[in-house]
Amino acid sequence: MSLAPWRSLITRALHKNRSLVYSRYVQLATVRENGLPANRTVVFRGFLEDTNQLKFITDIRSAKAEQIPQQPAAEICWYFPNSREQFRISGKLILITANSHPHLQPARIKMWQELSDAARLQFAWPTPGKERVRTPEAFTPSAPNPLEPLETFCLLLLEPTEVDYLELRGEPQNRTIYKLDENQEWDFEEINP
Amino acid sequence: MSLAPWRSLITRALHKNRSLVYSRYVQLATVRENGLPANRTVVFRGFLEDTNQLKFITDIRSAKAEQIPQQPAAEICWYFPNSREQFRISGKLILITANSHPHLQPARIKMWQELSDAARLQFAWPTPGKERVRTPEAFTPSAPNPLEPLETFCLLLLEPTEVDYLELRGEPQNRTIYKLDENQEWDFEEINP
Repeated sequence: MSLAPWRSLITRALHKNRSLVYSRYVQLATVRENGLPANRTVVFRGFLEDTNQLKFITDIRSAKAEQIPQQPAAEICWYFPNSREQFRISGKLILITANSHPHLQPARIKMWQELSDAARLQFAWPTPGKERVRTPEAFTPSAPNPLEPLETFCLLLLEPTEVDYLELRGEPQNRTIYKLDENQEWDFEEINP
Repeated sequence: MSLAPWRSLITRALHKNRSLVYSRYVQLATVRENGLPANRTVVFRGFLEDTNQLKFITDIRSAKAEQIPQQPAAEICWYFPNSREQFRISGKLILITANSHPHLQPARIKMWQELSDAARLQFAWPTPGKERVRTPEAFTPSAPNPLEPLETFCLLLLEPTEVDYLELRGEPQNRTIYKLDENQEWDFEEINP
């Protein structure tokens, strides 16, 4: 696999915006079972080695983990405030649970090991989205094993098929669409902003 | 109409994040005609007077303006970096074109008049998303009349029916869902983050 041509643009944008911790936050849109859109912030956690797949994490008990097997299509919107660039990346989500994708378990385990203690703890919290548990101890469980992921922990991959890149700082603005063609090569076209 | 209970939370978040011009940027998710999700950054332009409807603007020639009449459902994701708050607001979009919603034309015209010259100019640019026009003059048209909106200019309203509010700074975090009930009253429930 060769690096997609838009990868260097993301690397550059991450560098230009490195002073902002939230430049790694992206908004992930999916479609619910009832056909309505859903949209939430997730943290970009790098690319899966030797692929163009973006890594995220999620809890198996979250609404999005339920939605993905029904409808894996997604579009992330990634806005970089310092450099005023926007990437809209659409493609297919792949949910790596404790019991799926044996060949990707090493990647799931590595991701778990790279998390902060605080991030790991959330996977031992009460079920997200259910009526609030009032006992404070529920949110201060003992620290999970840092080597062995909890069953609730999922690696979430986005396999891109199209990238719509907008530079608001261009003159006047620049916009380029990258599309994966039938030979799995990336084509691109400059379009009006 | 009374102000929805989540309105004061947005007012407070806008105030706490007022140093960041991009705290008014939100990500708008919709569903395309083919059932796939779309997601892009739009600028929040206040609430429509005497309503809980959020105001945005768009070009009639944009992909989203085409999508909305087919599928008006939307969810915006609004992340406030300074205060670490997220609002997910879902509801129905209403597209006010030059030839629709006579009673909302005054609001459309007022919005146009409030725009900067640079923002107005974009509505006279070549068609967004089409092959890039190479003549630089195409992007430097003469300034449109600041009083009378161009035909391409649309006001876009989001009528919310549900708001999912997450405070990442809570202890551990706080999350509340606000829902419009059948009597058009706002209920709310605290849920696990």
